[in-house]
Amino acid sequence: MTSYKIAVIGGTGPQGRGLAYRFAKAGHTVVVGSRASERAEQTATDIATRIDDTAQISGADNVTAAGSADVVLLAVPYEGHAALVESLWAQLADKVVISCVNPIRFDARGPYGLRVGDGSAAEEAQRIVTDARLVGAFHHLSAVSLWSEAELLDHEDVLVCGDNSQATDVAVHLARAITGRDGINAGALRLARHLEPLTATLISINKRYKIRSGIRIVGLEHKV
Amino acid sequence: MTSYKIAVIGGTGPQGRGLAYRFAKAGHTVVVGSRASERAEQTATDIATRIDDTAQISGADNVTAAGSADVVLLAVPYEGHAALVESLWAQLADKVVISCVNPIRFDARGPYGLRVGDGSAAEEAQRIVTDARLVGAFHHLSAVSLWSEAELLDHEDVLVCGDNSQATDVAVHLARAITGRDGINAGALRLARHLEPLTATLISINKRYKIRSGIRIVGLEHKV
Repeated sequence: MTSYKIAVIGGTGPQGRGLAYRFAKAGHTVVVGSRASERAEQTATDIATRIDDTAQISGADNVTAAGSADVVLLAVPYEGHAALVESLWAQLADKVVISCVNPIRFDARGPYGLRVGDGSAAEEAQRIVTDARLVGAFHHLSAVSLWSEAELLDHEDVLVCGDNSQATDVAVHLARAITGRDGINAGALRLARHLEPLTATLISINKRYKIRSGIRIVGLEHKV
Repeated sequence: MTSYKIAVIGGTGPQGRGLAYRFAKAGHTVVVGSRASERAEQTATDIATRIDDTAQISGADNVTAAGSADVVLLAVPYEGHAALVESLWAQLADKVVISCVNPIRFDARGPYGLRVGDGSAAEEAQRIVTDARLVGAFHHLSAVSLWSEAELLDHEDVLVCGDNSQATDVAVHLARAITGRDGINAGALRLARHLEPLTATLISINKRYKIRSGIRIVGLEHKV
């Protein structure tokens, strides 16, 4: 299996921490990024403790983390997203940048997807760092499931979108660390505007049915 | 099983015809609606031929169809949607109105979801006919699968959203005609703005993998 050096920006948050854990557990080299390097280092230690001595995981401030990796995963809240991407401009250029950012909000009627000027957070990042190879993926995985003892989340699919096929292939492959299977290449990057707010629908289902829901693409046997 | 009288507006199109077939096959009374009653009657005859003498299915122009039913399913293209809903205003008031309308378009880069002023086609219909009880459902089912010989599409889920719980319950129940299981109540009607364009993502997956994809919600066993 190809092994990558992955920086998880926002790696101390629940989603970032869960993905960092899964990538490190699968043998990738992971740098947890955070605004404060101390917090990132603490999360890296917490993750290493859950795996074993072979885990290749460290912590650093976001700029250092992004600069040190081949693949950068953006796992930050949408609030402040544009400013954060701008602050990493020099580190993201020419890299495979995977966004699992979910621009969603909550009100009395539940969760809903925000209207984003660029269409999606992934497209916003692509506009800011033109030279990065943006991919949208890993939006729909429950942070609790990621951080759980489950060996794999093999009941779920990872949906991937992007305009650069080499970059989308990286995310398709990285999905194996989560589900044990390749991710599903859904198509162009602009489809991130549909994948990102789907998370609001899943959270709504979670609240109603008191579950941790995920998505599976079915019909793979129905060849046309 | 509760049986409904369902008008399928746009019932001569692939999606409408397939849903009309499935509902009639499951024992519901179905009126296929079309602009021209002759075409609607022809489709009703085609569907009855595929079932048997017990099928309760007929055809009529859209206005007559909508006026005769308890439940109205909007299965029309998004182009002309607002004008069509306005033309049925008197027939839709106070009814359960289920929209499976998908505002999507295609260009050289593939399918994508349109930005709809009201957020979604379902919300647009709700704004036009304030007194109707709008539900979004049945967006993601392949017309080919619906019209196939498969007894049930039991590998797929029907996602339902709506603000009136009695109306959403009707769609949740009607899903049994398609999948053999209740539909999944995803939450508020505004989530239709995420469910509708998800169809673009599925069509994109279909083109890439040469399949007829569908959605399954997984994790129902992960109670929290």
